[in-house]
Amino acid sequence: MNIITGGVTAATGFEAAGAEAGIKYKNRKDMAMIYSQKPCILAGTFTSNVVKAAPVLWDKKVVEESPYGQAVIINAGIANACTGKEGYDYCNRTAKAASKVLDIPESAVLVASTGVIGMQLPIDKIENGIGMLAAAKADTLEAGTLAAEAIMTTDTRSKQAAAQIEIGGKKVTLGGMSKGSGMIHPNMCTMLGFVTTDAVISKELLTKALKEDVTDTFNMISVDGDTSTNDTLIIMANGMAENPEIKDNTPEYEAFKEALHYINESLAKMMAGDGEGATALLEVKVTGADTKENARILSRSVVGSSLVKAMIYGHDANGGRILCALGYSGVEFDPDRVDLFFESKAGRIQTYKDGAALNFNEEEASKILAEPEVTILADMKMGTEAATAWGCDLTYDYVKINADYRS
Amino acid sequence: MNIITGGVTAATGFEAAGAEAGIKYKNRKDMAMIYSQKPCILAGTFTSNVVKAAPVLWDKKVVEESPYGQAVIINAGIANACTGKEGYDYCNRTAKAASKVLDIPESAVLVASTGVIGMQLPIDKIENGIGMLAAAKADTLEAGTLAAEAIMTTDTRSKQAAAQIEIGGKKVTLGGMSKGSGMIHPNMCTMLGFVTTDAVISKELLTKALKEDVTDTFNMISVDGDTSTNDTLIIMANGMAENPEIKDNTPEYEAFKEALHYINESLAKMMAGDGEGATALLEVKVTGADTKENARILSRSVVGSSLVKAMIYGHDANGGRILCALGYSGVEFDPDRVDLFFESKAGRIQTYKDGAALNFNEEEASKILAEPEVTILADMKMGTEAATAWGCDLTYDYVKINADYRS
Repeated sequence: MNIITGGVTAATGFEAAGAEAGIKYKNRKDMAMIYSQKPCILAGTFTSNVVKAAPVLWDKKVVEESPYGQAVIINAGIANACTGKEGYDYCNRTAKAASKVLDIPESAVLVASTGVIGMQLPIDKIENGIGMLAAAKADTLEAGTLAAEAIMTTDTRSKQAAAQIEIGGKKVTLGGMSKGSGMIHPNMCTMLGFVTTDAVISKELLTKALKEDVTDTFNMISVDGDTSTNDTLIIMANGMAENPEIKDNTPEYEAFKEALHYINESLAKMMAGDGEGATALLEVKVTGADTKENARILSRSVVGSSLVKAMIYGHDANGGRILCALGYSGVEFDPDRVDLFFESKAGRIQTYKDGAALNFNEEEASKILAEPEVTILADMKMGTEAATAWGCDLTYDYVKINADYRS
Repeated sequence: MNIITGGVTAATGFEAAGAEAGIKYKNRKDMAMIYSQKPCILAGTFTSNVVKAAPVLWDKKVVEESPYGQAVIINAGIANACTGKEGYDYCNRTAKAASKVLDIPESAVLVASTGVIGMQLPIDKIENGIGMLAAAKADTLEAGTLAAEAIMTTDTRSKQAAAQIEIGGKKVTLGGMSKGSGMIHPNMCTMLGFVTTDAVISKELLTKALKEDVTDTFNMISVDGDTSTNDTLIIMANGMAENPEIKDNTPEYEAFKEALHYINESLAKMMAGDGEGATALLEVKVTGADTKENARILSRSVVGSSLVKAMIYGHDANGGRILCALGYSGVEFDPDRVDLFFESKAGRIQTYKDGAALNFNEEEASKILAEPEVTILADMKMGTEAATAWGCDLTYDYVKINADYRS
C-alpha cells in the first residue's frame, strides 16, 4: 500500500466541488458534491440513534434498494434532523435537482446534512447550490479539497486521506474525506465520512469490508459521548481501475482492506484530534484484555471520561481517573493487576503498577502530557486482546462552542 | 411529615464534629465524625465501580457483617482509592483509633474518604484528627453543620436535610448530609451521603427502604458521567425515638419512606445543583414512557449529555440536542411523537411537537433557561410511566476545576 496525497477525487473517475450556497454560514463554502463518471456500487453505515435525520433515512434507502449511486450532495449548517415529513421531502427535492442537472437517476443521488437540529433547509438555496456545484465539479485534488472544506462545521481543518494498492497489475485507489467534530461518539460518531474507490468489487464484499473495519476505526472515537442523529459513512466503488474483481479470502481482499483501514483510521483520528475545542489527540490503548470486545469497551470508557479528558488538558498525570473509568465501563477485571503508562513524543512513564499508584516524576509526566498527541496505555493483565480508541481533551473552548452553537 | 432544620444531628442521640486535621487542605476543616450514643442498625449502598476504594471495602464488610455500627470517620482531600493493602490497613487503623477513643468495638466504626485517587493517607494526621473530633463532638445542629462542611471537596456549599414524622405517638426524626460534586453519575454518584434516624426499625426493612429509594434519588443524578471509586451512602438507625417497631406494608412504613425520600431527594438535588462549576440545577422529567426503567434511562441520558448541559449554560433552547440524547439512550421509541418543553420560574415553553421543531419565541425561551433551576420536560407519548433525573450545566469552571484538581 502506498499512502498518497488527496481525498475523494484521488480514485479514477471521481469529481468533486465545494460552493458558497449561503445556507446558514456567511462568506464560506457550505455545500459539496461528489460525482462519479460511472455508476458506483454503494455501501454505508449510519447512526444508531433512534432519532435519525431525514438524509440518513434517504441514504439508507438508496444504499439498500438502489443498484447504483453516482452522486452525493452535502450541506453544512443545518442538519435536517427532527424536521418531519417536510425535511424528508427536501431530500427528495435535492435528489431531483441533482438528477436533472447531472442527468442521472434520482435514486442514484445520496444526500447528507450536518449542523443545527430542528431547522428546515432553505431548499431554494440548496437547489441553487446544486447548479453551482455541477458547474464547478472537477477530478482534481484541489476540487476534492474544496469539497472537504465545504462540509466543515466547527472543524478547524479539513480531513482527507488516500492510498493506492495494486491488484492484478492495475492501480487501485481509495480516497476519503470526513468532518467532525462535536456530537462525536461510538456507534457512528457525529460525522460524515465519504470514501471513494475505483476498485472492481461486489456490493456484498464492499459492505463486508466496511462493516468489519468501522468497528475498529470510526466506532472507536469519541469527542463528547453524544451520538448524533446524522452520522453517515458512505463508500462508493465505480470499478474504473479495471482490476480483476476482488474476491473474499484472497490476498487482494486483504490489500484492499488494509488500504480501507488506513483511510478510515486516518479520517477517524483526524476527527478525534479536531474535536470541538481540542488541543490534543488522545489515544487509549488497552492491552491484556480477556476478549476483544472488552478491550474495545474499556478503551472507549477511558477516552470518553470527562475527568480523563480534562486532566489531559491540564497535563496532569492522574492515573486514578483512568482506573476509575476502566472500573465503571461495565467490564469485569481485577483492579489489583492493572498497569498504567503515559506515552508521547516526549517519552513514556509508568504511573500505576498492579492497580496501585507509583511514585513517579510529575514534571516528566507533565511534559509527556503536554504533547499534541498523547497515548494512555492500560495493561489489564487478564488475557491477550487489545483495542485502541481515540478522543481529545476537554477544554474551555468545547464549552464555549457548545454553549453558543446556534448563534 | 414535617421538614425541619438540621442534618445528621437532628435525630435523637446523634452527635457530630468537624476538625482541621491538615490532611491535604490548609486552613479548613477536612475531617468529620458522626457518633451515636447507642449502637445503630446499619444499611448502605456503594459504588458499582469495579475499582472500589479501601473505605468502600471496609464499610461493605461492616454493613454486611457487624450487628451494629456506632461511628463514622470521614476525611476529605484524599480518597484512599487505588492504594492497595496499605490503604486498607489505614481503614483498620482509623477504626482502631476511633474504637479506642470512643470506647466502642472496631467493627462498629465506618470510614469514608473523598478526594484524590492513588495517594496514601497520612495516618498519623488521621489518628490525631480522631482525637480532636471525639473531644469536639456534640448533638447540636451546629455540630452537624460543622461535619457537613468538613466533608466538602470541590463543593461550594454544605448539604443537609432533616424531617420528622410521628409513629405510635413518638416523634421519629431523620437527618442527613452529603457531599458532591465531581465524578457524579448514576449507580452511586461520587458522593458520600450519611443519613441518621432514631427510628426503631429492623435491619432488613431499613435496607429495603434504602434500596427502593436510591433508585429514584441518588441514582438519578449526574454531574459528569464518571462513577467514582468511593461512592457511599450509609443510613444509621439507633432506635432512640422508642416508637413501636416499623413493619413492612404499613402506613408507618410509608411515612418513614416518605421522610427518607425527602432527605435523599433533597441531598441528591443539592449535589446535582452544586456540580463542579455549575451555574444551574437541571431537572429532566420524562413522562409517557412505556416502562418505568425506560423513563429512568431516557431522563438520565438527557441529563448526562454534554451538549445538553453546555446549551443550558448558554441559555440556548436547542431541543434537537434533547431529542438526540433521548435517541441514543438505547430505549426504543417513536421519535415522531415526542413533545418537548422547557420550564422554570420564568415560565414554560414548548419547543417540539410530535418530534418536529416548533416556531417559538427564542427570547422568552432564553429567559426561562437563564433561571438557576431549569426543567426539561419530554413527553414520549408511548405509555404512562415517568421519571426525573437531576444534573447541572457544563461550564468553563468545570473544565478549570478538573484540569487542575491535584494541585
